[in-house]
Amino acid sequence: MAALARSVLVTGSNRGIGLELVRQLAASPRPPQHIFATCRDPEGPRGKVSAGIGSGMVLSQVDTVNLPSIQGAVWAVKSHLKDQGLNLLINNAGISSHATLRSLDSQEMLDVFATNVVGPLLVVKEFLPLLEQAAKSAGKEGLSCRRAAVINISTKLGSIGLCLGLPEAPMYPYRASKAAQNMVTRCLAAELQDKGILCVAIHPGWVKTDMGTEKAPLTVEHSVRGILTVLASLSQATSGAFLDWEGNSLPW
Amino acid sequence: MAALARSVLVTGSNRGIGLELVRQLAASPRPPQHIFATCRDPEGPRGKVSAGIGSGMVLSQVDTVNLPSIQGAVWAVKSHLKDQGLNLLINNAGISSHATLRSLDSQEMLDVFATNVVGPLLVVKEFLPLLEQAAKSAGKEGLSCRRAAVINISTKLGSIGLCLGLPEAPMYPYRASKAAQNMVTRCLAAELQDKGILCVAIHPGWVKTDMGTEKAPLTVEHSVRGILTVLASLSQATSGAFLDWEGNSLPW
Repeated sequence: MAALARSVLVTGSNRGIGLELVRQLAASPRPPQHIFATCRDPEGPRGKVSAGIGSGMVLSQVDTVNLPSIQGAVWAVKSHLKDQGLNLLINNAGISSHATLRSLDSQEMLDVFATNVVGPLLVVKEFLPLLEQAAKSAGKEGLSCRRAAVINISTKLGSIGLCLGLPEAPMYPYRASKAAQNMVTRCLAAELQDKGILCVAIHPGWVKTDMGTEKAPLTVEHSVRGILTVLASLSQATSGAFLDWEGNSLPW
Repeated sequence: MAALARSVLVTGSNRGIGLELVRQLAASPRPPQHIFATCRDPEGPRGKVSAGIGSGMVLSQVDTVNLPSIQGAVWAVKSHLKDQGLNLLINNAGISSHATLRSLDSQEMLDVFATNVVGPLLVVKEFLPLLEQAAKSAGKEGLSCRRAAVINISTKLGSIGLCLGLPEAPMYPYRASKAAQNMVTRCLAAELQDKGILCVAIHPGWVKTDMGTEKAPLTVEHSVRGILTVLASLSQATSGAFLDWEGNSLPW
């Protein structure tokens, strides 16, 4: 089996789904040549967990709501990749919020938007030249993660269509931010397909992580194995889609 | 024909669709007893346009991103309505943004979220006791604008499902904010239906206003006539829907 991509960058990779993504990528039979694992605080207690995983892995400090921090990462990634460009960008960093209508605070809501919507979009904007470079190097083949792709980690809670069926968790700021992020994914898919870059939103399932809590039914290993299988199958036909970790399509 | 509602509040009513809404409401054969026309600057050059429209109209200064300003308006509206509660709240205030991926600025994007998502949600949160009061006064009848309702003025550009078909206008901040606002409408519909409050998102069409420009195909009179007809027809069956000014359902 060919490698998923020659180079992969994962944001928020110090724990949960992000950490498991870089772990499984590094441990795969044909690992990517370059894995860039970024998080806000690589020196923190959780940051060190991923320090010794693989020789092809580069740990980098990126705060996705801070433009100079993203630009610094672009520079560092570029210096590693030389002229090959970045194939696969996984926007995984995100925060939750359980605010209800009653407990809603406008600043908290804006902070959630900043991290879950503005941050991923800024990351794409700044890494776009490297993604375009990768897409061009691949020639005229169709869209794929192997060529050039943006994967936004989303959630079923961001599905507006499913919202009436999930009233037990209002979570206004989180849900609204994820619906907005899904719109961003779809706009990016429309804008970047002519440049050879695929864009997809992935729901990882409800996973036993710090964010998902122990009540969640899925292990992070199982979810990430599914996500990586789905990523390997993506093509022109699925660009702009909203898929779960098993490849099922979700309503917006 | 019965009045659409005994009391109506419209935000952003100094121009465009908001101004036409209060105009047509005041001019209807059975006008609401109380029309609260709010905007950020009622004393400004455009604010005065609506000053002399109808005797039942109250002009009020509300900046929907400013909590004390909203709370001041709740107090003023309550003192007018006595114990009747507010029947119909129309969240019309909003701003546009034509930012592309290239021109994107994170602060501008957060400002658009603040006005288009956080603002309307704060307005609902603060006016909720008055809406609940109106819903209770109406007894156990079904959902309607006559009883108690929140109408969020949305846009087809906020439809994630239609996004791939409208790639000519990326407008990331505006589209993302309106998708988020649609999620908020849907969450509110789920949360407030048991309190007797209906919530719907309305696309007014592409209208000749300052925001829509002269290139738009619809006059504001035509759009608002349609919207008011749609509002009069809303019921339990359509709560949580995303409808255009002619009553057609739009995909999320």
